Formats: sequence, C-alpha cells, structure tokens
Amino acid sequence: MNDVIEIALLGSGTVGGGVIQILEKNGSEIAQKIGKPVRITKVLVRNPEKYKDLLQGYQMVTSIEEITSDPDIAIVIELMGREHPAKEYMEAALAAGKNVITANKDVLAKYGKELFALAEEHQVDFMFEAAVGGGIPIIRPLKNCLAANHITSILGIVNGTTNYMLTKMTQNGMSYGEALKKAQAKGYAESDPTADVEGLDSARKIAILASIGFNMRISVDDVYVEGISHVDYCDIEYARDLGYIIKLLGVAKKDAVNGVSCCVYPVMLPKKHPLAGVNDVFNAVFVTGDAVGDCMFMGRGAGRFPTASAVCGDIIDVARNIRHHSTGRVNCTCFEEKHLCTLDQIIAPCYIRLQVLDEPGVLATIATAFGKNDVSLKNVVQKALVEGRAELVVITHAVSELHLRKALKDLKALDTVYKICTILRVEDKDFE
Amino acid sequence: MNDVIEIALLGSGTVGGGVIQILEKNGSEIAQKIGKPVRITKVLVRNPEKYKDLLQGYQMVTSIEEITSDPDIAIVIELMGREHPAKEYMEAALAAGKNVITANKDVLAKYGKELFALAEEHQVDFMFEAAVGGGIPIIRPLKNCLAANHITSILGIVNGTTNYMLTKMTQNGMSYGEALKKAQAKGYAESDPTADVEGLDSARKIAILASIGFNMRISVDDVYVEGISHVDYCDIEYARDLGYIIKLLGVAKKDAVNGVSCCVYPVMLPKKHPLAGVNDVFNAVFVTGDAVGDCMFMGRGAGRFPTASAVCGDIIDVARNIRHHSTGRVNCTCFEEKHLCTLDQIIAPCYIRLQVLDEPGVLATIATAFGKNDVSLKNVVQKALVEGRAELVVITHAVSELHLRKALKDLKALDTVYKICTILRVEDKDFE
Repeated sequence: MNDVIEIALLGSGTVGGGVIQILEKNGSEIAQKIGKPVRITKVLVRNPEKYKDLLQGYQMVTSIEEITSDPDIAIVIELMGREHPAKEYMEAALAAGKNVITANKDVLAKYGKELFALAEEHQVDFMFEAAVGGGIPIIRPLKNCLAANHITSILGIVNGTTNYMLTKMTQNGMSYGEALKKAQAKGYAESDPTADVEGLDSARKIAILASIGFNMRISVDDVYVEGISHVDYCDIEYARDLGYIIKLLGVAKKDAVNGVSCCVYPVMLPKKHPLAGVNDVFNAVFVTGDAVGDCMFMGRGAGRFPTASAVCGDIIDVARNIRHHSTGRVNCTCFEEKHLCTLDQIIAPCYIRLQVLDEPGVLATIATAFGKNDVSLKNVVQKALVEGRAELVVITHAVSELHLRKALKDLKALDTVYKICTILRVEDKDFE
Repeated sequence: MNDVIEIALLGSGTVGGGVIQILEKNGSEIAQKIGKPVRITKVLVRNPEKYKDLLQGYQMVTSIEEITSDPDIAIVIELMGREHPAKEYMEAALAAGKNVITANKDVLAKYGKELFALAEEHQVDFMFEAAVGGGIPIIRPLKNCLAANHITSILGIVNGTTNYMLTKMTQNGMSYGEALKKAQAKGYAESDPTADVEGLDSARKIAILASIGFNMRISVDDVYVEGISHVDYCDIEYARDLGYIIKLLGVAKKDAVNGVSCCVYPVMLPKKHPLAGVNDVFNAVFVTGDAVGDCMFMGRGAGRFPTASAVCGDIIDVARNIRHHSTGRVNCTCFEEKHLCTLDQIIAPCYIRLQVLDEPGVLATIATAFGKNDVSLKNVVQKALVEGRAELVVITHAVSELHLRKALKDLKALDTVYKICTILRVEDKDFE
C-alpha cells in the first residue's frame, strides 16, 4: 500500500481551489486524523496554460484517462459542475475502481441511480456531502446519525440566493426586482438567475435529501416546483401581520396513507419556527424523525471554503475507508419502492390573496365557493383598495391541492373576483 | 460470521427502553441499511424480577461476565449512567474485544482517555453520539464532516433544564425560583437540580465537544464553571433592553496566542445570534471553523427517543464497521498537546450590574476604576433606585479576566459602590 493516499481533482475553479488550500493549510492534522497523509497529485483542467501559476507543484492533465489509468490515484474529486462531461468522467472513475467525491447536485439528482450502481459494483465510495447545503453536515447525519429513524419530513432552505433575496424583501422592504439586483451585485445571483429564483436548484437538493431520508430514489423530475418570482412585497407584509415569514423551501414529506411528496415552493412559516430565523445566504435543513423529533442543521450553503470543507470531510471519510479496506461501506440506501403521491394529494394550509369587488355580500359568495369545495378558512383579512376594489387575504386550514384547485376555479368564475394574486403554502407547526 | 449482529444492553431504563423500541419498530429498515440484522440478545439488569414483563423475549443477566464471555455478542451498549460501575463494565467489554456504545457523559468527560486507549488496543469501536446533545448529530459531524477544519470556537446550549428555565424567565417573566419549580413539575429538573443549574452537566458536555474539536483531551476538571443561580430576573430585563438574550453556554475557544479556553457560564447573546432563538428544552451547538465558517446543530438534547435515536445511529455505524471488518476505523483523535489558557487569559466583553450611591461624580469615580485597569466601557445604563441608591449597568469591550478582576477589586473598595450584583460574559459576534 502507498504511503500517501493520492487524489485527482477534476476542475480547478472556486471550490477546487478551496480544497487545494485547505489540504495545504490543514494537511498535517488531516493526516493525523486519517492515520496517513493525503495528497492531490493530478488536476484535470481544460487549459493548463491558464492555471500554470495557480497550480504550481501539481501535475495538470487534460484527459480523464490520465487519471483513470493511474494506479496510484485512489480518490477522484469531481468539481467541474454541470451534467456533462462530469457524469461520464465520474462513471469512468468509478469503473476504474476509484472512489469518487462530488459536489455536483445536477448529476446526482438526475443520474444518482447509475452512479451508485457503479460504486456498488466496484465496492468503492461515492460521496457528496457538498452537493446539498454547502458546508453544512447533512448527508452524513442523514445516512448515519439519524438512520434509525423513520423520517417523516425534511424542510430545507437550500438555496442561498433566494434566501438572501427574501431576507432583503422582508427586512429592508425591497421589491423582488430590487432584491434580485442587490443579489446580483453581491455575486450571489447569476446574470441569468432562473435556476435559483424558479426553484430548480432547490429541487435538485431536496430530491437528494428526500432520496436519503425516505430510502427511495427521488429524481429532480419527481419534484413539483414553484419559485419566488410571483411573491410580491405585499404578501410579505400580510404574512408578517399574520405572524409568518416567507421562505423558499424544499418540502419532502412522508405520509403513511398517501406516500411521499416532494416539492419546492415559497412557504409561510410561523415566526418562531427555527427556519424562520435563518436569514441572508445561510441555508438550513429541518428534519423530523419518529425517534429524534425535530432537529435542524444550519450553515453556509455555498462559497469556496464552506463547500470545500464538506469535500475535505468526504476525503477524510474515504481515506479512512481506504486505510481500513472498507470502501463501499455506506453506499446507496434507496431500497424502498418509490410511492410518490400525486400533486392533487398534497395537503397543506394555504394563503390566498385575491382582489374582489368591494360590496356587501361579496365575502359571503367567496366563503361559499371555498366551503362547497371542502376548503375551510382559518383567517380572513379584508382591506379596501381604490375604485371599489378590496383585497382579501385568506388562510385556509389544511387542504388538498385537488380541493384547493377546484375552489380556485369556482372563484375565478365569479364576477365579484377580479384576480387571484398569490397562493402560498403555510407550514403550521408552531414553536414556543 | 454470524447472520445477526448481537448486542448486549447494560441498563434498561428510559433510554435503554427507547433503544429496544426503536429496534423493534424500525429494525427491518435498519437491517437493510446495514446489510445485516442487529438484535439485542442480553440485557444486564440489577433486578430481573422488576423487568420480567418489560423485557419479555430478552435474556436478562445480572453479571457483566455473562456478556464479556459470550463470543456472539459484538456490541455492548452502556446506558446505566453514573461513573461506577459503568466505567468498569465498559473497560471489561472493550478488553473482551466488544465494540462499545455509551451515552455516559460523566464517564467520558473524566475517563475518556483510558477508554479510548483500550478501544485502540483492541481495534474496536467506542462511540458516544448520545452523550452530548441527545438526538442531535454533533459528535460524528465534528469527527468527520468538519474534520478538515481548524475549529476556532464551539458554543453550546447543552443543558435542556437550564435552557427551559431561562426561556421561562425571559418569555414569561418568572423568577429563578419559579422557573426551577416549573422545570421540576415538568420533570425537566431533578429534586436536587445542582448538576444542571450549577453548570456541571454542561461542563462535561463542552469538555467532550472541545476534546474532539481541538484534537486534545480536555477533561471536566479543565472547565471553568458558573451556573445560572445568580442570574436575576432584572438582568434578563436589562439584557433585553440592550438587545441581548441570556443563555447558559458551554464556550470552548481556541486562540493561536493563548491556547484553548473551556468554560460554562451564562452569556448575553445578541438577539439575532442563531443560539438566541433556541428555546425551551432544545439544545444547540454552534461551531465555527476556518473553512466552514459558522454552522449550528439544533434538536432535542434529552428524552427517551431522541437519545435512543443517537444510540441507534451508533449501532448502525458500528454494525457497518463489523460487516466491513473495519472496527476501530475512527477512534480517538486527541493527538495535540493540551495547551489550556489560564482563567486570567480568558477574554470576553462583560456585563456588570452594580448598586452605587446616587450622587453627582459617582459615575466618574467608577469609570476611572475601570479605565485605570484597562477595562474600556461600551454601554452604560443608570437607573435610580430608592433611598439614594442607583443601579448601574455596564457593558465592557473585550477584557481579560485578569483586568476585569482587578477592576472589580478596585470597585469593591470604593465607598460609593454598595454591591456588585451580577457579572455576565457577552458574546459580541453579531448577525443580520
């Protein structure tokens, strides 16, 4: 066995550079924790010329074969991002018997099954702590510490960009557009912010968490997704008046009757819910299990060093397995049949904001439309607007999506309803 | 190799019963996650007669030898509590080559070194996720996920009883005595609450966390401890007016110049600090590392099922190691020389409440006493009391304990100072 555990890095961007720096700075302690030193020996880059100063002392290569064919390399870290060729490179590495570490949620949420099967076949490790929640330990706690639980619910603020924007809208009264500009100026949002603000990034992450929590393979295509672009500042104000804070959440729930639901949408959280206080670019995952009850993991969900911290944690874990000849020790745990509920079956209390005719009897008509579709109302707030219009805000008791949609259809057909402005789900579990 | 991984349980109280129930309820999923079933076969109890209904189907034994001499038993779970004979039984189990899981913070914080040495010698696992923070995954995240970091600070609300009491004092205006009575009525505090309210329980837990975080063996005797019995309701009110919440924290910090400090005391936390929102019996640990930045782990710090959840997580981890012949894979990581700073060297901003003579010039005298001892003041609040007395509340900038004590000595010598009522440390890291 080699005296050093050798690592190849695929990609040398923000996070890759962070991994290199952490191993340089904290390498001797890391070696003591493992019982053996680890060292990055090869770095795959597209353009070696560009990195020749940055990667001094590291061997740069341009083809994956130079890594897969190198018998000394035991661990391959994929930090290229995007689906291709990252997926193919990871497959090649696993097939060559290399342990693979990745932060690539795009690939995982879509091709997790194939990659795990390859890891299983070759009895190597496939780890991805950095793929969800950046530096926050959440994958390993779910796979290990909480693994004796029946997990019933996972709620996650897993996108820092949208959490930053909603925080600015909530605390500084910014509009959606202003908050987006501010996030872009700070480098938190990309020039095309779609994947963040429309919830796709969160969808990938909640699919990964739900797969582990519920022991079944849930892909990003199984997730029902709404983003935050339809959240108006006035919804945030109404929410506050009613005792809520709006957050974009990944919501995965398991219900003995209906099965598993996995969604991303803006949620009104009671002010005292632990997730309601998670602001700025911080991420947090709130897990409920039958034994542990509620617990929450919070931290920085992105950024060079937090993400690299998670990657290096994986390195330590894999290296310990290598030292003890136990790679492949914990791999895929998706042994349960997938039983997702339909969108119609999803049940949650809802917040609905409508613009209606400001006349006697209108509220009764509207209440009737809700009532005959089995939607029962918990709070109603009415506010006069200009020109004979009123704004009506309604919070329902728990209602199925099926009944909700029927009620909304009936409401839309009413002459007295001008517009259904916003629909938000409400998380009603309260905290002292 | 056996088809089943056999477990012996030492003690069958609250947590032991919880472990039995979880394994009965979730055992088939747990077996799938491990790749092999686990089963409790023997339970050590003092009085088998008492448990004959509760432990039907389990073999009760009364001597540790019946467990250590049984070659089929691979895992011994110690849930007896207290130091003796728990320590001796764990030693016997480790020496017999059994993997040991415990929730016993008392033994760990005092005899961790000896037990780890035995585990190392026999290449078996010694795990204790349940010893700190009940169900909250914190030991494994520190030993693994965050292991690539230089940890600089660990702040923990690690005692549910005192957190419940301080929450009641803060939110419901209760006095210390009332809060204690309420905690006793709810079963959160024992009839002799000393270990909780005087901080000893927290001291054991922060010693364990600091040992892992700073890679050096810190024993409970190394921890400077103050409890909450001297916290008056009016301190909580002053704190609130100044934007702080008072929590009993374990505080472990590592500073390149002075070394490591490890304390338990009531701390004034800025209202927006994530720990400030952790109420009731919830526990939370807030960790700062050079790569990950800030992260927090929150959940139920005690109780039958949360604690049993952590024990069962350890069972899964040990069983995976047994299956892969890799027990002893992660054991003691205390490889650094202990370099604790002295109490005098501990640096923090402080809150001081005094009763003074209500006369012109008194504030100047007091400010001078602080100033000449290098204690610089950040906030001063003065409030008239009856009979020519005033109450003075002072918050200092960061000050060493040495300078603080000198200043307090000078203050006590002043004719114009009647009484130094309360001294609290202030955590000044702020959050948006």
